[in-house]
Amino acid sequence: MFDNINLVPKMEVIVIGNEVTSGLIEEKNSRYIGRRAMQLGWECTRVTSIGDDAKTITECLGESLSRVDWIVLTGGLGATHDDITKKVLADLFECGWKSDAKVKKMLERLFHIRGKEVPHYAYSQTEVPDEAEVLYNEKGTAPGLLFKRNNQHVFALPGVPLEMEYLFEKYIVPSLEGSGKHKICHRMLHTAGITESALWQKFGPVDPLERWVKVASLPSHLGVKIRLSAEGEEDSDIWHRLDQAESLLRESVGHYIFGVDGETLEYVAGVLLKSRNENLAVAESCTGGLIGSRLTNISGSSSYFLEGMITYSNQAKIQRLGVPANLIGQHGAVSQQVAEAMAQGIRQVSGAHWGVAVTGIAGPTGGTPDKPVGLTYIAVSGADKTHAEKFLFHQDRVRNKERAAQAALNMLRLRLLEAS
Amino acid sequence: MFDNINLVPKMEVIVIGNEVTSGLIEEKNSRYIGRRAMQLGWECTRVTSIGDDAKTITECLGESLSRVDWIVLTGGLGATHDDITKKVLADLFECGWKSDAKVKKMLERLFHIRGKEVPHYAYSQTEVPDEAEVLYNEKGTAPGLLFKRNNQHVFALPGVPLEMEYLFEKYIVPSLEGSGKHKICHRMLHTAGITESALWQKFGPVDPLERWVKVASLPSHLGVKIRLSAEGEEDSDIWHRLDQAESLLRESVGHYIFGVDGETLEYVAGVLLKSRNENLAVAESCTGGLIGSRLTNISGSSSYFLEGMITYSNQAKIQRLGVPANLIGQHGAVSQQVAEAMAQGIRQVSGAHWGVAVTGIAGPTGGTPDKPVGLTYIAVSGADKTHAEKFLFHQDRVRNKERAAQAALNMLRLRLLEAS
Repeated sequence: MFDNINLVPKMEVIVIGNEVTSGLIEEKNSRYIGRRAMQLGWECTRVTSIGDDAKTITECLGESLSRVDWIVLTGGLGATHDDITKKVLADLFECGWKSDAKVKKMLERLFHIRGKEVPHYAYSQTEVPDEAEVLYNEKGTAPGLLFKRNNQHVFALPGVPLEMEYLFEKYIVPSLEGSGKHKICHRMLHTAGITESALWQKFGPVDPLERWVKVASLPSHLGVKIRLSAEGEEDSDIWHRLDQAESLLRESVGHYIFGVDGETLEYVAGVLLKSRNENLAVAESCTGGLIGSRLTNISGSSSYFLEGMITYSNQAKIQRLGVPANLIGQHGAVSQQVAEAMAQGIRQVSGAHWGVAVTGIAGPTGGTPDKPVGLTYIAVSGADKTHAEKFLFHQDRVRNKERAAQAALNMLRLRLLEAS
Repeated sequence: MFDNINLVPKMEVIVIGNEVTSGLIEEKNSRYIGRRAMQLGWECTRVTSIGDDAKTITECLGESLSRVDWIVLTGGLGATHDDITKKVLADLFECGWKSDAKVKKMLERLFHIRGKEVPHYAYSQTEVPDEAEVLYNEKGTAPGLLFKRNNQHVFALPGVPLEMEYLFEKYIVPSLEGSGKHKICHRMLHTAGITESALWQKFGPVDPLERWVKVASLPSHLGVKIRLSAEGEEDSDIWHRLDQAESLLRESVGHYIFGVDGETLEYVAGVLLKSRNENLAVAESCTGGLIGSRLTNISGSSSYFLEGMITYSNQAKIQRLGVPANLIGQHGAVSQQVAEAMAQGIRQVSGAHWGVAVTGIAGPTGGTPDKPVGLTYIAVSGADKTHAEKFLFHQDRVRNKERAAQAALNMLRLRLLEAS
């Protein structure tokens, strides 16, 4: 894909746990590591998830060591009997065992703070392979471990995300920083309100983009993401390429691009509200509080988010928002008229500059031939006007809610831009 | 781990995409496949995520084929230039190319329904390797493919979850069903309100459990899950073992177990409310709508969830819920007194049988020595009484919100059980 991809330092991740391969839990650690590696100029080339099986762990680690020099393992370091990672690594690296006094002290302090006795079995955490460097874990009971041999590094970290992230930042990041001379950097542009085919139809051939970067188009039910990737040795050159490509995209589809990299719609809407010194209230029916929850995921949102009303029942729409009962009778709760009345109502009742309202049929039941599952009306009310849009989402209940919340935040964003 | 694990049929999953290994997107397909495989008596033994690189894909697939006979690949089947999975597989299985008329017809129909022209580049989807069986995709433009050779099966599915799930159910599940004679079945028990060490302290040694099943304990910031696994040939025997182990656990820690397998707290609370013919309203401050959103993820929740108020500002707490201004002045918005007043207020205003309220400091800012980040009060108000509990969560903003919502739903569950 890239000319000099082999110059980028590489790592692999091994995730250990039957609960991962059998899909019983959502595994988030590998994503965290992959993203941080990229930011530090490294490439995570492979993530392998395997079960709690000594033979498989040994084989898998051997394969990884034949490909790369840096490996991060997560999971299986706890104190319960199914946690075998520590033992497998000790065998593989032919270690004996030692008791670590600092781990013991930290363990006792942790339980002391919680006002609890150290359970007997937890003391097994203080036993570590004698050839390993101990990565002291302030966030939990399982220490991480680093095994080094012939310039190869194997880090073993606990699977609890908070602990994994803490140890990764404290012990691994400093070793990775500055190691990569030849870098590949990615930039993600997030779009909303346009399908993948319409987006590229609008942009035209990708050749002008590819003069600067590699391009990938990543559709999901919440919108299309465009990944730009550039390689080089100089940050300034890489950034220049990414900037050039981003400019080209913004020229033709800029309107649809709402954010870059970690920016979410709730973040962007918050920035716009703050810059205008304005505030917001929401009235949610089918989204059930999801828009409020997303808005309040942003630290500092209390300065522009006044309140929300989850008016799930008709009565709540009438009593809380002043939606006329006959409007619901005439057009139904899921209608343009009711969406508009809800947005006006929440704006008036709260005294906010902006009111956003959603009413729809999330499904899987409740649809009719006239008003099928997925039918959703979203309205934004400001000082100048109230306008509503009709959407027809084709997903399951939770995804329909997610799409409705995304569309509502995007409508708010566009109104705020329009007003600027 | 198990005596006869080799008798369980095995598959591997290969996930293709730089956006996955570099952590730019959340990868959910492998979890879906792992869980479905388990339900069907199969074991997913390995999930490997790799970038869009022909050599790596070829190598990785070769390794998987040396271990198992069933492989599911996802990703890289789109019509954009970075989608190379189809070409790599065609080369590996030494195929030529053919145009598939049915794929063409489906593609044209899909765009017709959307009222759009088929973009020129999308027609590349109609070209398929001539040795592959085409898996017709009603949910999107990229067909899936099945390559068979010497009893080995390689399924290639698009990466968009909705399309992947559709094709997996339609084409792969029928082949898997009934193939597994020797099965391993898992049962997940979900707990809330107890730490891992306290839970096992309370239960005592796991030996009595292990007479029936294998046990794994999976802690996260939302609670501890206990995975029970049993193997055998007869469903009835496997179920008996799982039931015996579950009974033992329920005898000593039953109170903390809120659900089994796919059951969430919002689902369980909904079942309890429905069985009592009662309803609920919520008042959320720091959770910002998350409790309402979780409750309304359940189909049919409109029969017991009346409404919610996201009273983020003090003014909203006073005006919407009738919390006395001097109560906030005296104790602060994050206090037991205000939580109780909020719960009573929402119950009264909505006329619901039950009111749930949360007020807390989600962080990362807003904490003081007296009231640190993570301090949260949760109250449940019913006809008989209103009671509040104090929590101190130690996570980041979003996880503190998640823990508060989880604790609130668990308090509601316990009150509903107590009232029964």
